[in-house]
Parts: sequence; structure tokens; C-alpha cells
Amino acid sequence: MKSLLIIAHGSRREASNEEIRALTDKLRQHPANDADHTSCAFLELAAPGIPEGIQQSIDQGATTVVVYPYFLSQGRHVAEDIPHEVKEKQLQHPDINIVIADYFGSSERVVELLAQESGASLTAQLTARE
Amino acid sequence: MKSLLIIAHGSRREASNEEIRALTDKLRQHPANDADHTSCAFLELAAPGIPEGIQQSIDQGATTVVVYPYFLSQGRHVAEDIPHEVKEKQLQHPDINIVIADYFGSSERVVELLAQESGASLTAQLTARE
Repeated sequence: MKSLLIIAHGSRREASNEEIRALTDKLRQHPANDADHTSCAFLELAAPGIPEGIQQSIDQGATTVVVYPYFLSQGRHVAEDIPHEVKEKQLQHPDINIVIADYFGSSERVVELLAQESGASLTAQLTARE
Repeated sequence: MKSLLIIAHGSRREASNEEIRALTDKLRQHPANDADHTSCAFLELAAPGIPEGIQQSIDQGATTVVVYPYFLSQGRHVAEDIPHEVKEKQLQHPDINIVIADYFGSSERVVELLAQESGASLTAQLTARE
């Protein structure tokens, strides 16, 4: 059983955490997602944390857990903190295949989308002034 | 003159800040971006800060500055900190049109891209095991 675990930063603003949970719900139902189980976890400030999120996936029967950092750049959270938390669960569960995917912002298509979205914002703004 | 200012969080890890600068270079050359001037600024931990980034755009001749929060969810940074820093420059420059665009993660197309990218990660992982 394949499990996809989206990792977000987590926020003191609960609406922001809810936004990630709503995104995870949409992702769970998306045709491009062929994971058997899709959930989210937070690096800090919100629950579940990363070890708990991985454990919940394992408890659901996952034999492969793909940990997906939903981050835009490779700061310390992506480079150090997430691998550190994942390592703990890898050592606890050598029989489970727990891997960290490339972070979201590393995709070339993010640049493409950013160009389109920021271009649209600019156009909207200029049109509003006319 | 229209200026596009990409706002990232900023990191203690300088490679992460360089990643944002490289992204901004790509964005500057992208055909979907019709801004006359494209640059980036950081909320914290890296330079330029937001007020400095806005000022540099104005010094380049901008009459409209679109501040684009390159963030995935609406935590306190997007909801409070960025508007607070922008407000300062709006008060200083009532003759310049300084506006904050919707943050990157608010786009419906981000969900779509996340579904495709995370799905690809999952497939790559499963193929690697075979």
C-alpha cells in the first residue's frame, strides 16, 4: 500500500493549517494521485507532526510512504529539519519504505506557473486602473 | 512603468535565497511576464527587505508596483506581516500605485500542479523499487 504524506510548515494561524488540510482533501480525490492513502503533516505549530503523520500512514497499512515537502525553496526546513524527522521513523521501521520526494518548488513547472499567475495579477491590476 | 516584486520568506541558508534570485531571473525573461521591471525581496533573513525592494522599484521609475507573495498558504506572514511592511511604503509614496497580489498558493492551478508532481514522485518511487 502506497501512502502520500504532504508536509507543510504549519502556522499559528489555524486558517492556514485548514487550508493545507483542504488542499490535501482535493489532492486525495485528484485523478493524477494514485496513492492509496493521502494525508498531511506539519513541521511545526500544528498537528500531526511529521513522525505522527508517518506513523498514521503505517497504521493504515502503508508499505511505502512518500514524504512530499510542500515548500517553495530549499531552506533549512527542507535541507535539514524534514530529513531529521523522517530519519527517526526510518530507523524505527526498517521494513517500511519511507522516502522523501523532491520539494514542490524544485519543479521547473513552478516557475512556469508563477510566470503565468504573476503576469495575470499584473494585468488585473492594470485593467482595474483604466 | 510596471514593476513586479516577488516576495519570499528568506532563509539563513544562503543557497535558498539564491534559488529565489535565480527564479526571479527566469521570471524576468519569461514571455508571460509583461512587467517592465522584475525583482525580488525577502520578508526576513535576507536582503533586500520588502520596503527596500519597493523603494528600488520606485527608484527604477515604477509607477505601479505589484507585490507578489510567493507563499503557499495564508499564514501570518501573508495575512499580517507583508501588508504591514507594504503599508509603510504606501503612506510614504501616495503617488505610486503599490498593490499586493493574491499569494501564490491561492491559485487553483497550484493544487493541479501539486497533484501532478506528487503523483510523479510516487510513480518514480514505485518504479525504482521494481
